[in-house]
Amino acid sequence: MGKIIFGDQILDRSVVHIDLEDRGYQFGDGVYEVIRVYGGKLFTAKEHIERLFQSAKKIKMDISMTPERIEDLVAELVKENGVGFGSVYMQVTRGTAPRTHMFPKPDSQTTAVLTAYTNEVPRPERQLESGVDAITAEDIRWLRCDIKSLNLLPNVLAKQEATEAGCFEAILHRSGIVTEGSSSNAYLVRNGEVITHPADNFILNGITRQVLAKLCQENGIPFVEKAFGVVDLLQADEVFITSTTSEVMPIVKVDDKPIGAGKPGGVTRKLQTLFEAKINEETKVEIKR
Amino acid sequence: MGKIIFGDQILDRSVVHIDLEDRGYQFGDGVYEVIRVYGGKLFTAKEHIERLFQSAKKIKMDISMTPERIEDLVAELVKENGVGFGSVYMQVTRGTAPRTHMFPKPDSQTTAVLTAYTNEVPRPERQLESGVDAITAEDIRWLRCDIKSLNLLPNVLAKQEATEAGCFEAILHRSGIVTEGSSSNAYLVRNGEVITHPADNFILNGITRQVLAKLCQENGIPFVEKAFGVVDLLQADEVFITSTTSEVMPIVKVDDKPIGAGKPGGVTRKLQTLFEAKINEETKVEIKR
Repeated sequence: MGKIIFGDQILDRSVVHIDLEDRGYQFGDGVYEVIRVYGGKLFTAKEHIERLFQSAKKIKMDISMTPERIEDLVAELVKENGVGFGSVYMQVTRGTAPRTHMFPKPDSQTTAVLTAYTNEVPRPERQLESGVDAITAEDIRWLRCDIKSLNLLPNVLAKQEATEAGCFEAILHRSGIVTEGSSSNAYLVRNGEVITHPADNFILNGITRQVLAKLCQENGIPFVEKAFGVVDLLQADEVFITSTTSEVMPIVKVDDKPIGAGKPGGVTRKLQTLFEAKINEETKVEIKR
Repeated sequence: MGKIIFGDQILDRSVVHIDLEDRGYQFGDGVYEVIRVYGGKLFTAKEHIERLFQSAKKIKMDISMTPERIEDLVAELVKENGVGFGSVYMQVTRGTAPRTHMFPKPDSQTTAVLTAYTNEVPRPERQLESGVDAITAEDIRWLRCDIKSLNLLPNVLAKQEATEAGCFEAILHRSGIVTEGSSSNAYLVRNGEVITHPADNFILNGITRQVLAKLCQENGIPFVEKAFGVVDLLQADEVFITSTTSEVMPIVKVDDKPIGAGKPGGVTRKLQTLFEAKINEETKVEIKR
C-alpha cells in the first residue's frame, strides 16, 4: 500500500493510526468513494469526488477541504505509489470526539478525517468475457441508499451470502422490487431496452451508471429508469451490473437460473465496448478485453 | 479515560491505535454494548455481554473470547480506572483485512478486535425528576434493528435533529408506527397499561426494557407488547423512554405538545422507583433521585 493520504498529507502507511473514538469507528459516521485507475490514469475522478461532497452534505458533514485539493492529493498519491491498474479508496469521517450520538459541537476541535490509499486491481477480464452468477437477496438496508456511507453491514452480509453461494454478487430486492446489487447497480435488458431502478433514495446513483446512461443516450439505446421485479429479472433477455471496479459485468445466471441464452447478450456486449471506448477516450490508455 | 481494553489486554489508552483497514472503520462491521456502573459496581453486566454475543452471532462474527473473560476484563478495567458512576463502552469488530465486502477467509490471520473504555457519567438526576422533551422522526434504519451494530448513522442523524430542536430524544416511527428512540426504547402509558413495540426486527430489545418488563410482571403492572401510532403517543396518559444511561426517563412533551398533564406521570414514577430499587438490590449501592 506504501503511501496513504491522512488529512491534508501524504504519509507512510506505517505511521498512520486511527483513534478508537473516531466517529467512523463507532458510528460508521462517514462517507466514501472508490476511483478506478487505468494505466496510472484516474477515471471519472471529478465525478467521484463531487459525489463524496454530495454524500457528506446529505449527512451534514463538513469535509474541511476543497474538492480540488483532494483531487490533487489523490493524483499525487497514485503517482507516488506507482499505481498501474488499480483503485483509490477514500473515506471521510466526522472526526474524533468523545462518543455521543449527536454531532460534535461546531466550536469543538473535531474536524473531518480523510484517509485514502491505493491498491493494484487488475481488470476482471475473464469475468467480463464469460459473465458471472448472482443470487437475489432481500434488501434490508436503510432508506437513504443514495448516500455512499460507511454503514455497510447489510451490504457486507449480502455479499457474503453471494460468496458462500459461489456467486459474484447479490442483487437486492425490497418486497420483490429489484433495487441494486450489494456493491453495484443492476439492470435488465428487454426488447432492446436497458431498464434500471430510478435514482431515488433506494439506490446509489453509481458513477458508472451515470456514464452508461449517457453512452446509451448518445448511441440510441433506450435507457429506462423504472422499477422492475425479481420475476422480470429472471425472465429478462439479458442482465448486467455496473460498478467502478466491475465496469459493465454480464450476469449469466441468477439464483441458478440461466438468463437468456445463459451467456452475455448483445446489448451488454455493446455497452461493454462503448464503456471501454469511454475509458480509452478519457485516460488515453488502451484497454482490451 | 486512562486504561482501555484492546483485544485480550488492558493497556494505556495512549498506546492503542486502530488500523485504517479495520472493518469497523470501513464498513461499521461490528457490534457494541454500553454497561452502566453505579458506585463502582457493574449493573446487568452479564446480560449486556450475552447480548454482545447474540449480536455478533447474528452478523456471523466470531468474538474469539469467552463471555467470562470479557466480564473479568471489564470488571478489572472499571477497578483500574476507579470508575464511580459511569459507563463501560465496548465494541467488537470483525478485524483488520484488505477491504472487500465479503468476510475475511477463515484461514486468514484476521481476528475480531475488542475495544472497551470507561467514562464517568453522573445519573441524569435533574432530568429524571423533571422529565425531558422529544421529537418524532421517521425511522429510516435498516430492517435488523434487533442487532446492536455499529451502523448508527441514521441514529446519529435523528439524535442530532432532536438536539437541534432542543430535545433529549427523537422517537422514531415507520409510516406512523412508533418503533423506539434513536438510542432508547419508547413506551406509552394508557389506562394503567405500559405499551411498547414488540421485540422484533424493528427494535433493539433493550436490557433496561427487559428489566422493566420483569418489574412490571412482578408488580402487577400490565406490560403490553404491541404496535402503536404517533397519534396514540401524543394522546397517551404518560410517555417515557428507557436506556442504559437514561434509565426510566419521563417524556413530558412530544413535538412541542404536552403529554398528559405535561409532567412525569404516576406509572412512570412508580417504574422509576422500582428500577432504582433493582439497581440497589443488584449493586448494593444506594442511589437516590
